[in-house]
Amino acid sequence: MTIRRLSVYTRCLLQLEEDGVQTISSQELAERFDLNSAQVRKDLAYFGEFGVRGIGYFVSGLKAELQRILGLDREWPVALVGFGNLGSALFHYKGFTRQGFRIAAIVDDDPVKVAREVDTIPIIGSRDMAREIKARAIQIAIVAVPAESAQAVADQLVAAGIKAILNFAPSRLKVPRDVRLKHVDLSIELETLSFYLAKTGRT
Amino acid sequence: MTIRRLSVYTRCLLQLEEDGVQTISSQELAERFDLNSAQVRKDLAYFGEFGVRGIGYFVSGLKAELQRILGLDREWPVALVGFGNLGSALFHYKGFTRQGFRIAAIVDDDPVKVAREVDTIPIIGSRDMAREIKARAIQIAIVAVPAESAQAVADQLVAAGIKAILNFAPSRLKVPRDVRLKHVDLSIELETLSFYLAKTGRT
Repeated sequence: MTIRRLSVYTRCLLQLEEDGVQTISSQELAERFDLNSAQVRKDLAYFGEFGVRGIGYFVSGLKAELQRILGLDREWPVALVGFGNLGSALFHYKGFTRQGFRIAAIVDDDPVKVAREVDTIPIIGSRDMAREIKARAIQIAIVAVPAESAQAVADQLVAAGIKAILNFAPSRLKVPRDVRLKHVDLSIELETLSFYLAKTGRT
Repeated sequence: MTIRRLSVYTRCLLQLEEDGVQTISSQELAERFDLNSAQVRKDLAYFGEFGVRGIGYFVSGLKAELQRILGLDREWPVALVGFGNLGSALFHYKGFTRQGFRIAAIVDDDPVKVAREVDTIPIIGSRDMAREIKARAIQIAIVAVPAESAQAVADQLVAAGIKAILNFAPSRLKVPRDVRLKHVDLSIELETLSFYLAKTGRT
């Protein structure tokens, strides 16, 4: 099962919990959230212990288990490197906090920004980055710097002990094998849309 | 085959083309870009006409075919609604232009922003949005407004004739069946990282 799907199910279950739903079958879950029902059935079969035959899955129990698997049962301090438009947008992105990701350090070398505070988080220069990462036991970093500085930033992050990097810079990064790297390419999302529009145009 | 994987292969092939590679086997492609080789082989088998047994696939031919399928063989004008930090970051995101998505209209109701120009694109108020969308035959819109205004914006976009929406607002939108909607949830990407870190902690 892809981890992405676990995340999607977790969101659906959170929504159901907010709506006061206590149990749900894989079929209902699929219909309600427009998911592939065969896939949902197969995926959730792994979590049989949270279900009752003929009734369905216990929403809260299954949600808590998925959150535990995804590491969302704790808070993760995150370092944000790059505080331009994108960095600033990511800092204020409510979805991160909701899932337990808390930006604990902001790094930017722009002299206008350094030493400013954003919602009580000070912006530090990259020369202080390693110290801050160690002091706060930060394992996850978000890279939101221009493409040309991204590899240098990644190298510094790895040297400082970062174990996972979410890269928004449009450049391929190299990191050691024990560091998890995930590249976010926002245009892929647009392409799934143009695919459908192009297909409609063809038929 | 998921459309997302088609996008990934297209990127790999673009990279190979830039590197001067003319043919590649599915095995090499998988190794070079750290993909699942059984999956790559299966996916690319659909495109057998672009391959030669014992040699592999013709990089340029396969790339062009995938681009055609994804609708990337043309330019798509896009309306960007919301020009805060995120909207601004998306406007300057190089990846969109590279794949043929060109932001042709920027919409924001902030009086400080309206009538300003960004790289020759004027920022217009939402009251002029429908006219602009029609005049420029725009079919795709990016929603980067706060959660509480997202549904109202989506309704206006649909009424103006938009056929595909990429939603960055953290709220579920309802659109008619013939409109494609894609929600970008940036925290899902962080969750794939916390999954691995949590797993490492467990073992």
